[in-house]
Amino acid sequence: MGGMLRLRPAAAIVTVLLAAPALAAEAGGHEDPIGRIVLELAVVLVAAKLGGELATRARQPPVLGELLAGVVLGNLDLAGIGALEGIQADPAVDVLAKLGVLLLLFEVGLESTVRDMLRVGLSSLLVAVIGVLVPFGLGWGAGAVLIPGAGPYVHAFLGATLSATSVGITARVLQDLGRSRGPEARVILGAAVIDDVLGLVILAVVSGAVVAADAGRSVSTGAVIAIVAKASLFLVGALVLGVKLSPRMFRVASRLQTRGVLLAVGLAFCFTLSWLSGAIGLAPIVGAFAAGLVLEDVHYKDFVDRGEHGLEDLIRPIGSFLVPIFFVLMGMKTDLRAFGDPRVLGLAGALTVAAIVGKQACGAGVVGRGIDRLTVGLGMIPRGEVGLIFANMGLSLKLGGRPLLGADAYSAIVIVVVVTTLVTPPALRFSLARLDRRTPERLQGRPGACD
Amino acid sequence: MGGMLRLRPAAAIVTVLLAAPALAAEAGGHEDPIGRIVLELAVVLVAAKLGGELATRARQPPVLGELLAGVVLGNLDLAGIGALEGIQADPAVDVLAKLGVLLLLFEVGLESTVRDMLRVGLSSLLVAVIGVLVPFGLGWGAGAVLIPGAGPYVHAFLGATLSATSVGITARVLQDLGRSRGPEARVILGAAVIDDVLGLVILAVVSGAVVAADAGRSVSTGAVIAIVAKASLFLVGALVLGVKLSPRMFRVASRLQTRGVLLAVGLAFCFTLSWLSGAIGLAPIVGAFAAGLVLEDVHYKDFVDRGEHGLEDLIRPIGSFLVPIFFVLMGMKTDLRAFGDPRVLGLAGALTVAAIVGKQACGAGVVGRGIDRLTVGLGMIPRGEVGLIFANMGLSLKLGGRPLLGADAYSAIVIVVVVTTLVTPPALRFSLARLDRRTPERLQGRPGACD
Repeated sequence: MGGMLRLRPAAAIVTVLLAAPALAAEAGGHEDPIGRIVLELAVVLVAAKLGGELATRARQPPVLGELLAGVVLGNLDLAGIGALEGIQADPAVDVLAKLGVLLLLFEVGLESTVRDMLRVGLSSLLVAVIGVLVPFGLGWGAGAVLIPGAGPYVHAFLGATLSATSVGITARVLQDLGRSRGPEARVILGAAVIDDVLGLVILAVVSGAVVAADAGRSVSTGAVIAIVAKASLFLVGALVLGVKLSPRMFRVASRLQTRGVLLAVGLAFCFTLSWLSGAIGLAPIVGAFAAGLVLEDVHYKDFVDRGEHGLEDLIRPIGSFLVPIFFVLMGMKTDLRAFGDPRVLGLAGALTVAAIVGKQACGAGVVGRGIDRLTVGLGMIPRGEVGLIFANMGLSLKLGGRPLLGADAYSAIVIVVVVTTLVTPPALRFSLARLDRRTPERLQGRPGACD
Repeated sequence: MGGMLRLRPAAAIVTVLLAAPALAAEAGGHEDPIGRIVLELAVVLVAAKLGGELATRARQPPVLGELLAGVVLGNLDLAGIGALEGIQADPAVDVLAKLGVLLLLFEVGLESTVRDMLRVGLSSLLVAVIGVLVPFGLGWGAGAVLIPGAGPYVHAFLGATLSATSVGITARVLQDLGRSRGPEARVILGAAVIDDVLGLVILAVVSGAVVAADAGRSVSTGAVIAIVAKASLFLVGALVLGVKLSPRMFRVASRLQTRGVLLAVGLAFCFTLSWLSGAIGLAPIVGAFAAGLVLEDVHYKDFVDRGEHGLEDLIRPIGSFLVPIFFVLMGMKTDLRAFGDPRVLGLAGALTVAAIVGKQACGAGVVGRGIDRLTVGLGMIPRGEVGLIFANMGLSLKLGGRPLLGADAYSAIVIVVVVTTLVTPPALRFSLARLDRRTPERLQGRPGACD
């Protein structure tokens, strides 16, 4: 029976994949796009669970399986099956995926408090600063050595794309492994938030310098200061004001008699901070994470006391629907053709090493005992969508009439994103298992990994 | 304190409405649309809960408040506040709303079984047939009397727009009042499904006749038979095959070790049937409802036995997020300006009376005792988005070079949709309260209205 069982997920994957083009083709003829969208969602959800299952059986975090399921779905056109291309181009699926990653960060934020974060604040700050500067320098160096003719602006830009961590993957792996409340998780998540601010500044400076050089002017330091000020104001404001106002908000809300108030208020709070952080130029997930940090169980005690579910219980099924969409879609965006060009692979390899090694320096920033430096360094590896946003900006920036980044450099960055994303789940799992073996008493404080 | 409390929702509404334009304006300048979308969602969720609260305090079902909150948000441009217009034009919000109504029908379907539905099958069939034919005739007659010059095709089309029930509102009101498992609910929901098939046939016949008349040809009866055959095949096929296959599907799924399998499989099943029903030309909600009917608690007993949540518990929070978006958006689509034109109001009044009176004849179709005929008739009143889809088709059909429906007739249909939608929640509430007073023992079988 074990043999039968092992075969089933694979057989089911094949069935889904074979059936999908026929389905998609027929759906294309239909008027209301909701028909096509729900079919795409069904394919993505089934693929996510099958991928997750294979990963689980290989003792890896499910998110790795979801990513790989996405890679398979997204590259079926290489096998002549083009019908699923529509999924990654569908703006509705993209929105659901983005809502998914917001809810993931909100959920992870709910598991910590602002006080927890401040306790590891110095470590997070140092980890973030080191984790931005070292990969920036290494990326610049790798560019200067491998494509010297491209000039310092391109080299600096390559460095910049390596600077910002995409915290979604790490957050999910820590959640998969039941470690999202641990001290390493707090250091990593705090660092990722600061990281995002620093990345924003670097991007502003580098792209400002390129634009200025192209026009023969110099960079405006005023603009850079304004970005830093806005971002810091948002973070401090959201956390300080949020902690003050949120208990009051829920006290008022708890007097409402209609159903579903806790969930609606919680989501509205998360969405408002996400919007605000996006409007300021930070990633919207920074706002969602801040919203989760601010909200604490005790704020909505009134709801739970009268027999309603807590906010985490209410968010979990929504996340369980939307979060896998994000990771499958992320996998789908991987174009395996980029791996075929040896020139691209050389640059990609060097940048990937710079990206991974650069973030390992982070561990040195951890202050105090009891926090595993290797885990922190590994958790900072993924570049994900932030790297892609940088790379896309590099395609649209012009220097002397040409795009700053050529197609080769762009493909190399895509490969860095893919490799750093796929490498993180097994690496973190290994590192945390090693930690458990060494200090088994650490296990006691962690919530159940299965529910 | 009571006075303070009563004021609060109103004050909060004002605050939201005043703040929204400023927020929306600033969001418009931002690149990633997810920022704008989450802000819109926050506004919609808060408005939904405030509207729901006001309705609850006025002893009405929350859905009425959500609709009215939408009417207010959607008509703020009449008060010079145009910033919220974007919400109803946003395709992402529209998709979330449509997913919401799919999940609502899925949820309601989960509360009944195919066997339950067959038990009231004859009543449902008669209710559906009467409820399609009588409003069709009355609508045709109202058109012939009030706009005789428009010709028989327009009159027939007006009749057709009155034929199909939009079951979303009724399903939600029955859920709000804890009555979605009652016998009236089953008759109404079953009738609404058959209704949708009949409406599809009528629409096909009428629009086929218009197209044929415009081209000087006659209607193809073959096409009509094909539609009826496809729709019947889908319903019978989905229910028969579904009941056979679903236990097996969950038995296989329960062997997977990764998390969130039950929810993913349930949603994928719902989405696949929704897509299929849409691809055949039925409303996607028919497929979602059929999926809910097919799935029974016992199929996923394996999951619940090992301590996981049941499917209904998992779907509820997702519905609680998405369903209010549907009803607020539906309210937003109401253009109050249509109520200002006396000529439109005359036709609208006559059609509304035809729509409401026509569906009251339905009660006569109920076979057997213990099912309240008035409640069934009232539950069939709402026309909602199906009426609007018909009306939009009337705008795009051409007869002699002109649109079949003029702007006046279109506005009149919009008013019919608004009035039948807004009238249903209080009418059903009244009718069910009357029933409870008369036969209090009926209350015992009903699940708790509050949770």
